[in-house]
Amino acid sequence: MTAPIDFYFDFSSPYGFLGSEKIEALAGRHGRTVDWHPILLGVVFRQTGAMPLTEVPLKGAYSRRDFARSAKFHGVEGFRMPSRFPIPTQAAARIVLWTKAHDPSRTAAVVHALYGAFFRADGDISQPDVAAEAAAQGGVDRSAARASVDDPAVKAALKAENERAMTAGVFGSPFTIVDGEPFWGVDRFDQIDRWLSNGGW
Amino acid sequence: MTAPIDFYFDFSSPYGFLGSEKIEALAGRHGRTVDWHPILLGVVFRQTGAMPLTEVPLKGAYSRRDFARSAKFHGVEGFRMPSRFPIPTQAAARIVLWTKAHDPSRTAAVVHALYGAFFRADGDISQPDVAAEAAAQGGVDRSAARASVDDPAVKAALKAENERAMTAGVFGSPFTIVDGEPFWGVDRFDQIDRWLSNGGW
Repeated sequence: MTAPIDFYFDFSSPYGFLGSEKIEALAGRHGRTVDWHPILLGVVFRQTGAMPLTEVPLKGAYSRRDFARSAKFHGVEGFRMPSRFPIPTQAAARIVLWTKAHDPSRTAAVVHALYGAFFRADGDISQPDVAAEAAAQGGVDRSAARASVDDPAVKAALKAENERAMTAGVFGSPFTIVDGEPFWGVDRFDQIDRWLSNGGW
Repeated sequence: MTAPIDFYFDFSSPYGFLGSEKIEALAGRHGRTVDWHPILLGVVFRQTGAMPLTEVPLKGAYSRRDFARSAKFHGVEGFRMPSRFPIPTQAAARIVLWTKAHDPSRTAAVVHALYGAFFRADGDISQPDVAAEAAAQGGVDRSAARASVDDPAVKAALKAENERAMTAGVFGSPFTIVDGEPFWGVDRFDQIDRWLSNGGW
């Protein structure tokens, strides 16, 4: 099968960032492409009762240590925890969905530019102007990207994306679905690799 | 350095079971031994507000799928979800601590026998008689093991073990500490492997 791999992520998720840096090479090794699905994890968390990892007693300190260690383990250069974290990610997610609709060949570049602005350059991409500036580095028009953040059609598209994600069982970031099989976390990429090699197991 | 690796686990944890089947080989490749620390995750969860994975909306169904898939991925034969799950694990944990105190060379065998009884043979090791019978397969005396479950000194040892675990920052199972560095999950074993190879990174 050659269907795209569905990659769900929230821009405020460090493991989502690490996954975003690895997923294309992983998919490409198996002749697959990536369908990028930016979602708002806060909306999903209201369903599961979860909260941001860094705010959980004991887990918070561990997770900050694990983010940095996992970045090194996966060979992702330049990772640093942003000064402001977590952040609302509507602006960044809407710009990605607008890019997918209007200039799909630039979607991956826009995702990488936005994630890099937040997790490498400490840019506060919750601010629409900062997000639009970052997206422009990915090759889209800055002012059109900025306008998309307030576009009712794009807002509706993000709502629909969240609904579809929850229907598909997505509850974390990154969350990858391969031919219907769900994998939660960048730490399942080795299982995805074997799954794609064997066509299941 | 050649200090033992501290391996914390709850007998009701599927990922703890998978980790228990892999940790000795991992440690051994680096000239290390394993110090087994059975804990009661329920006590820890009261601190972190967590609950058993299988009881969380959305995550529950995913986690059952992931347990079986991860067992295959890690090459652990014979895994099956027990009929009764999760279970209280005081009896099994106390028998391990009693074994550590009285016949330490059999500790690993007793851990494997208890975990296998639960996650391979569907034995309800929350029952002291069932746990003692399983432990006997690991080479200790069945009736002495059974008596240890009600021994006030052993009960106190388990309480102390839990306290030490929380002080050390343990909040999940399996939880491995290598020379002070914490690793949560069997999915961090590849990071432990690299950590031990490089002496940190």
